[in-house]
Amino acid sequence: MDFAYDAKTQDLIGQMEAFMDEVIYPAEPTAHEQIQAAIKDDTWSPPAILKDLQAEAKKRGLWNFFLPGDQGAGLTNLQYAPLAEITGRSIQLAPAAVNCAAPDTGNMEVLHMFGTPEQKKQWLEPLLAGEIRSSFAMTEPKVASSDATNIETAIVKDGDDYVINGRKWWITGAMNPDAKIFIVMGKTDPSADRHRQQSMILVERDTPGFDIERGMHVFGYNDRDHGGHAEISFTDVRVPASNLIGAEGEGFAIAQARLGPGRIHHCMRSLGIAERAVEMMSKRALDRVAFGKPIADQGVVRDWIAESRVRIEQLRLLVLKTAWLMDTAGNRGAHTEIQAIKIATPQTVEWILDKAIQVHGAGGLSQDFPLAEWFAGIRTLRFADGPDEVHKNSLARAELKKHA
Amino acid sequence: MDFAYDAKTQDLIGQMEAFMDEVIYPAEPTAHEQIQAAIKDDTWSPPAILKDLQAEAKKRGLWNFFLPGDQGAGLTNLQYAPLAEITGRSIQLAPAAVNCAAPDTGNMEVLHMFGTPEQKKQWLEPLLAGEIRSSFAMTEPKVASSDATNIETAIVKDGDDYVINGRKWWITGAMNPDAKIFIVMGKTDPSADRHRQQSMILVERDTPGFDIERGMHVFGYNDRDHGGHAEISFTDVRVPASNLIGAEGEGFAIAQARLGPGRIHHCMRSLGIAERAVEMMSKRALDRVAFGKPIADQGVVRDWIAESRVRIEQLRLLVLKTAWLMDTAGNRGAHTEIQAIKIATPQTVEWILDKAIQVHGAGGLSQDFPLAEWFAGIRTLRFADGPDEVHKNSLARAELKKHA
Amino acid sequence: MDFAYDAKTQDLIGQMEAFMDEVIYPAEPTAHEQIQAAIKDDTWSPPAILKDLQAEAKKRGLWNFFLPGDQGAGLTNLQYAPLAEITGRSIQLAPAAVNCAAPDTGNMEVLHMFGTPEQKKQWLEPLLAGEIRSSFAMTEPKVASSDATNIETAIVKDGDDYVINGRKWWITGAMNPDAKIFIVMGKTDPSADRHRQQSMILVERDTPGFDIERGMHVFGYNDRDHGGHAEISFTDVRVPASNLIGAEGEGFAIAQARLGPGRIHHCMRSLGIAERAVEMMSKRALDRVAFGKPIADQGVVRDWIAESRVRIEQLRLLVLKTAWLMDTAGNRGAHTEIQAIKIATPQTVEWILDKAIQVHGAGGLSQDFPLAEWFAGIRTLRFADGPDEVHKNSLARAELKKHA
Amino acid sequence: MDFAYDAKTQDLIGQMEAFMDEVIYPAEPTAHEQIQAAIKDDTWSPPAILKDLQAEAKKRGLWNFFLPGDQGAGLTNLQYAPLAEITGRSIQLAPAAVNCAAPDTGNMEVLHMFGTPEQKKQWLEPLLAGEIRSSFAMTEPKVASSDATNIETAIVKDGDDYVINGRKWWITGAMNPDAKIFIVMGKTDPSADRHRQQSMILVERDTPGFDIERGMHVFGYNDRDHGGHAEISFTDVRVPASNLIGAEGEGFAIAQARLGPGRIHHCMRSLGIAERAVEMMSKRALDRVAFGKPIADQGVVRDWIAESRVRIEQLRLLVLKTAWLMDTAGNRGAHTEIQAIKIATPQTVEWILDKAIQVHGAGGLSQDFPLAEWFAGIRTLRFADGPDEVHKNSLARAELKKHA
Repeated sequence: MDFAYDAKTQDLIGQMEAFMDEVIYPAEPTAHEQIQAAIKDDTWSPPAILKDLQAEAKKRGLWNFFLPGDQGAGLTNLQYAPLAEITGRSIQLAPAAVNCAAPDTGNMEVLHMFGTPEQKKQWLEPLLAGEIRSSFAMTEPKVASSDATNIETAIVKDGDDYVINGRKWWITGAMNPDAKIFIVMGKTDPSADRHRQQSMILVERDTPGFDIERGMHVFGYNDRDHGGHAEISFTDVRVPASNLIGAEGEGFAIAQARLGPGRIHHCMRSLGIAERAVEMMSKRALDRVAFGKPIADQGVVRDWIAESRVRIEQLRLLVLKTAWLMDTAGNRGAHTEIQAIKIATPQTVEWILDKAIQVHGAGGLSQDFPLAEWFAGIRTLRFADGPDEVHKNSLARAELKKHA
Repeated sequence: MDFAYDAKTQDLIGQMEAFMDEVIYPAEPTAHEQIQAAIKDDTWSPPAILKDLQAEAKKRGLWNFFLPGDQGAGLTNLQYAPLAEITGRSIQLAPAAVNCAAPDTGNMEVLHMFGTPEQKKQWLEPLLAGEIRSSFAMTEPKVASSDATNIETAIVKDGDDYVINGRKWWITGAMNPDAKIFIVMGKTDPSADRHRQQSMILVERDTPGFDIERGMHVFGYNDRDHGGHAEISFTDVRVPASNLIGAEGEGFAIAQARLGPGRIHHCMRSLGIAERAVEMMSKRALDRVAFGKPIADQGVVRDWIAESRVRIEQLRLLVLKTAWLMDTAGNRGAHTEIQAIKIATPQTVEWILDKAIQVHGAGGLSQDFPLAEWFAGIRTLRFADGPDEVHKNSLARAELKKHA
Repeated sequence: MDFAYDAKTQDLIGQMEAFMDEVIYPAEPTAHEQIQAAIKDDTWSPPAILKDLQAEAKKRGLWNFFLPGDQGAGLTNLQYAPLAEITGRSIQLAPAAVNCAAPDTGNMEVLHMFGTPEQKKQWLEPLLAGEIRSSFAMTEPKVASSDATNIETAIVKDGDDYVINGRKWWITGAMNPDAKIFIVMGKTDPSADRHRQQSMILVERDTPGFDIERGMHVFGYNDRDHGGHAEISFTDVRVPASNLIGAEGEGFAIAQARLGPGRIHHCMRSLGIAERAVEMMSKRALDRVAFGKPIADQGVVRDWIAESRVRIEQLRLLVLKTAWLMDTAGNRGAHTEIQAIKIATPQTVEWILDKAIQVHGAGGLSQDFPLAEWFAGIRTLRFADGPDEVHKNSLARAELKKHA
Repeated sequence: MDFAYDAKTQDLIGQMEAFMDEVIYPAEPTAHEQIQAAIKDDTWSPPAILKDLQAEAKKRGLWNFFLPGDQGAGLTNLQYAPLAEITGRSIQLAPAAVNCAAPDTGNMEVLHMFGTPEQKKQWLEPLLAGEIRSSFAMTEPKVASSDATNIETAIVKDGDDYVINGRKWWITGAMNPDAKIFIVMGKTDPSADRHRQQSMILVERDTPGFDIERGMHVFGYNDRDHGGHAEISFTDVRVPASNLIGAEGEGFAIAQARLGPGRIHHCMRSLGIAERAVEMMSKRALDRVAFGKPIADQGVVRDWIAESRVRIEQLRLLVLKTAWLMDTAGNRGAHTEIQAIKIATPQTVEWILDKAIQVHGAGGLSQDFPLAEWFAGIRTLRFADGPDEVHKNSLARAELKKHA
């Protein structure tokens, strides 16, 4: 057992920290202004400055960390974890700047693992190059998203095409006009075995019958920085049969392969949010004077700061161990731990953000600080891929089995 | 000791419930659309339907409950409490519909108690008639709002006028063009005793030098339904000396007189929010099926519902007792209890809203339900008139004194 | 609605407070010594000083408050509530001193309501006079106590007698040799309807076949001050048929009639424990100096004290309202509220005791202060008459029904 | 970074698990009876069966794991951690069986590091052989134990002797007659620098003037299994000068060296308690039927089990990382992490034990299960070496410094 990062990771951490200090943090005010302008103009492109950040990241070789092997940075999950955490410190800019933003990472992994050479050429390459963005359309408004087998969208073979009908929502990134390609999950064979009914298929943004209906809000935010969360309808959407990913009936298995890494990436980045919140809370507490002394001298504020540190340290180690398990025992071998961090992360980070907000006073809830928006984002993790309660139930079942 | 509402209160509760069922709830979808349109058009008038609701309320005699005596409904705080709670069930519409919305209620009380006949004629009468709205400008961005003596805005006598310079923020209702009159707190004599430096003065919306700079967001919301929360600057704003409320140096005392009722009214209405959240949570739990049975059958969901009921019942009784104390022992005699409900209310209602959101799934955070917006509103109460931590500290000091 | 105690109650509160100040508190050190000696000698009689306290209470007319009507003090539940709370402040002595201690109160109520004249003469009269004590034997080790219909003890008619076989545990007071009479619940007709199988019968302590097997511990305490909690076996215990309370099959109904008041009395007294804990916590915080200042100056300690006050105030009002409901709508009409206070009370008081202990340092867990023993007692309330989880489930069902 | 135990550790884990299964668990019922008999007889020797367990452990080579180097098992802290955790599963027997029980471990470390050859021969050797036990006398009733510089006990040089006067309490293990030697901390020079006033000195049990006054209770337990917690007085206790450990003035430094490992050992063992509690809770939930189904099917119980797992996994990793830091950066380099686990451990384990108790019903609080006694033990950790609040304050200060 060894708790030190390996040399390669330490080197990349150093590079990423330099990139944050030299490039990302200085860009935040401009990005904030550009996003505020987008809200005013009701446009959905990411802040223009992002292109510059991506160019600089590429130049520095800080790119596609998430993808193992030659096409990516060749890192293990464990090596990637602290880098993803660092990007979480500037969640609106840094993940996208190094081409490690959700949902594209998951989509690239799917194409990387299951795509045909033609699919890779047409879609994976521009995604890896950061030239386009993508979305993943699974969740549906009418059925509980905690069970992927409930999905109702129909994907019906018709000659050399498939025809898609259905409705999706909470499709992250879809409002961004750069999101050129959608991976859509639906049912090709409702009469097959429960886990063999689903397939995944690629749908281009401008396909007739594909309609982006509206952006979902989270609290009052519409998350323009990362393309919002759209409700989408598919009305007789026709795509060539060659757009199918893998074979018919493999949709559920592909989704499972995609979900594990997706969940841990969220947790990694959330740690970065938590660390930045502690930093902001500490600085504010040192600066802000009330009743004649800095509020950092107040016992309750110190209690919050200490508790934050104690909770973060524990959470990070479990995230790292989970990454290590994924590397050594596979996603399936890390199943329980992935559930555990999915449960623990929003609990911990929400608590910290709440306290950081409180230390900032009413301003902490406003557009003058990012804390409330981070809170909103973290709050969604308690539902993402099914509510925590479903995961707790499953985790308890596994625990009970050990003692039966 | 008697826990039954008196006959008058019971009668008014019946009338208010009928008004909610027949008028307010049916108007909610239209109001929601009008507010969404206002967001799109970036306008700040309240939803047009409000005028109809006010007309109907007036016709039914459901008006100005908050104001004791002839000019209002002649109710005690205890009699008003359950009515205010009922309005909280439709917080965007009902309080304004019966002319019992903050911050106007507090402003009307100030004018009622401290205004000159001319001030009453010019400003109180149209406010009581619901023809105009108003704002209360106390909080400043540069100083801790927990201590009113910190205020920096200058109100300087110059011949027959006062000249005002300063900056305020979180001025609720100010973005609404109907908010014609502002009660502004500032310092007329920085050299006087600590609690005699402040004065209150009336400033009309269109006075030169009075600038509404921007609307503050709360969790991404800008609260258009009740006129937002503005940042405002005063640059050599000149008003006639007759606009002063009371005498010079009485500002702090007037503020204190205003704060007690203001706080309890928030708590009363918050109970209505909590009750409606429990109702929504229960209905949703009964309707929504997951894994083959309604989620109302899940033990964890039942635990949330039971806890919500247990917490609401306790909180309501403390709010009612506080109202009774204000009636029988005065605002000062109810000081500790007002602090107690100010601390207890957001804790309780936030917890319930969080659970109600969770039962609604991701939709619970979106514009499809009001829950997340209510959460944002309740969250601000943990700062309003100073953070909870300040009130807890003061309450503890009072407790310790008993045992010293 | 009126939150003031009536004149009679206020007068009795004054008398009880004088009794506590003049008689009970001064007796605590002696009682503590006598109980410590009993532990050493392994004897189970209550502290000898109790007889003196009872004599003084009787002399002052502070006696049998719990019992309505002529034979008791003629108080309503609402009038009794603050008096019971006061006795809770010295939980080892005061309830017994005024003959209002569990489980005797419930047993006296049962005999009062359902006893024959002979039973009353033989058992109720000496109980009301404080000459003997009693126990109530319902809970059994083998079945879940949350459902009284599970009870397995057999009560079989045999000529003019009943013969009892079975095993009970957690029979409070039974180790005390003064506990001369036991009300035993068992089944007379296992083939009857589910709620008509049970009967209650009186068993004298010295009846052959009645064996007190052992005292149950609670966190290491054996609760000698109130006669411990015994495990008891009944082996062919023969009692005359005239010992039956009410008719065969009425046992469940009698138990229900007994449980409501029993639960609220526990809650009333627990409030007294909480108040004394806040008092002790405050005094200790003022006296104890750490790092150069009293710990009452520490923000975290103040937070605990303020939270304690806020929680107690809410809880007391719900307990009082429940008492009022029992008086005005009957035990059945107060069913939900009784469940609510049964859930809320241990949560609140446990939390306060934990903080009071922490303020006392390690000594707070020891025999030098009563705090840890109170904690142990309060902790048992989360199981008493079925675990909280059962009550929450039932309360949630009632709430859901309102919205179905 | 690597989360796998090394081969040596894995081998020892296997041996320890076999020892638990074959020797310790089967001995628990006998030990329980022997301890109950000791309570009855008011004797303080450990259960007689312990000698057999120690003999068997020695035979298997499972001995003195805690001590690095030749005289001990030569393990790092990281290697020791999982073994200590396993002993925590049977906290009354296993740590003592393998001669790794507090406070002896800390005392042996002190003698190992700072003892003279004579002191080692006379005291360390029989301790390492498990022939005698020992105590550590630092805490005093009159001063806050959170600051070791407060200590008042006087150690005065008088010719070739030192004469000790003072009073200590919470001296763990001291009631056990086998505790032959005490390490006593006191002041040799009250006029020296604040951290140079203290010295440590060895005092034999039968020295004149050394009086064991009483055993402190924790809740109602007196912890006979590990020699209780004594209050001790020193009245002109005279010991040879050669009994001094190290030089005069080195007491504070020695105490610091002792505290770090002591704290982490408690945390390691507490993890074992938590794991066994989850095991007991799971088994009980599977076995116990209520309302027609095992309570393992209840959502709330599953929530507790899942949360327990999630919290334990995080806590264990932080304990392990802290051990690794102590190995690689020294006790001082692990200072913040030691504070963090001291804060986190009782929070986590108390919560789990509370839930395990609740699943066991009232029996869970009684002598029929060890859960309540474990709870009592864990509760003391929130005070041990100063209350958590002091450690949180210090940890927060360290965090704030990073951002100043």
